[in-house]
Parts: sequence; structure tokens; C-alpha cells
Amino acid sequence: MGDIRSMVESYWATAQARDWTAFADTLAVDVSYELPQTRERVLGREAVVRFNVEYPGEWSVEVERIVADDRQAVSWVRVTVGEEEEQGIGFFTAGPDGRIQSIVDFWPEAYQPPAGREHLVERF
Amino acid sequence: MGDIRSMVESYWATAQARDWTAFADTLAVDVSYELPQTRERVLGREAVVRFNVEYPGEWSVEVERIVADDRQAVSWVRVTVGEEEEQGIGFFTAGPDGRIQSIVDFWPEAYQPPAGREHLVERF
Repeated sequence: MGDIRSMVESYWATAQARDWTAFADTLAVDVSYELPQTRERVLGREAVVRFNVEYPGEWSVEVERIVADDRQAVSWVRVTVGEEEEQGIGFFTAGPDGRIQSIVDFWPEAYQPPAGREHLVERF
Repeated sequence: MGDIRSMVESYWATAQARDWTAFADTLAVDVSYELPQTRERVLGREAVVRFNVEYPGEWSVEVERIVADDRQAVSWVRVTVGEEEEQGIGFFTAGPDGRIQSIVDFWPEAYQPPAGREHLVERF
């Protein structure tokens, strides 16, 4: 099945291509997808595929970085919808057959920097 | 100097211990610390140490997960201040001497789940 890094690369490439059959093939049958920020969980390959199929907006995803060891990977991606860009971070684990067993996804949003640290920071 | 995984473990352990000398020793002299959500950047070991020394609140940090390859690592941590918990994700790279060369830190906040996907999700 290949390693977890290539599985995660395939997860994003097939999502971007809307190739949902190949996307499903990266996922274990009993995959778990969690969003800690909303405390939502999606269980099972079919539901996780549908969650992505039904995700609204004409989004486009580009991988910024993937870090992986033998059984785990993390991806940092940039998702654009029109002029808007969001950054997402996903923690992946591999199941016994090498497919993705679990995903924990974070979608951090922009916020105003707190006062009191201007002497240490620059803006970009 | 050890690998980037143990350097990141030491980064968090020494931060938690407020052992700022040992904390500084995990960082390259020209380390870069970035917060994409606020578009802030802190440059150099001295400023990054001060940023952490001066960070307000009686925070306590616990490592949830670290994923690392040879030159990169990602940490997912839980930071508590009183009753409040925040989750942080940091992307680390190693410099030539094995110390931390760059950190990109995300602090995702809780939000309400969007409507329209209740048929696919459970809450936790």
C-alpha cells in the first residue's frame, strides 16, 4: 500500500482532482475524522468521502508541507476559495493495511495580535 | 546535538519548567518564529526566548503528539491556563547544528459547526 506520506499525498491530490474513488481508496473502512475546534467526528469511509464531496465552495487545495514518520503524518495545506485563503493542519495515522486510519483536522483562523509584544515582533 | 524530535521534546519540557537557559539551548542563534494567524514574526534566539518568558498567564503545557522525520517535526500541544484549554500546532525545522531553525505556530480556536452536515457528524 505504500507509506503514510504517499497516502497523505494521494489523499490531497485525489481530493483536488475530485477523484472520489481514488480518494476513498486512501481511507480505511473504519476511518475516523475529527475536528477538535467544533468537536465534530465523522466515522467510516463512506461518511468521510461524502463529507468531502459535499463540502461547499469551489475550493482548491495545495500542500505546503508534509512531515511523516513510519506510521504518522502531518500535512499543512492552503485552501483557496475565490480570494479567500485558509490554512489547514491534519494529523494522520496509518492503519494495519497502510490506509489512513485517523485524521484530526485543524483550521486556524486569522486574529488580531494581542498588545504588549510589539517590541519583539515584526509583521509579514 | 540529537535529532529534531528530541530537540522539540526538550523545547516543550524546558518551557514547562521555565528553564530558560536550557530552552534557549534548543534554538539556533538565528531562529525564526512565525505566527501565520496574526502574521507576526520573531527573529533570533534572544527575542524568541523573551517572547516565551513574557508570555502572560500561568500556563501549563502538555505534549499530545510529535511527528518527526530527520529534519522536521510537528508538535501538537495542549496549553491550560486555569480552566481554559488551547491547542497549539508547531512546525519545526532543524538547522545545521541540529538546533531548531524555524518554528511556525498555529493556535486554532473553537468555533460553531456550520449547518448542513449534521447527517454525517457526531459531536464529542
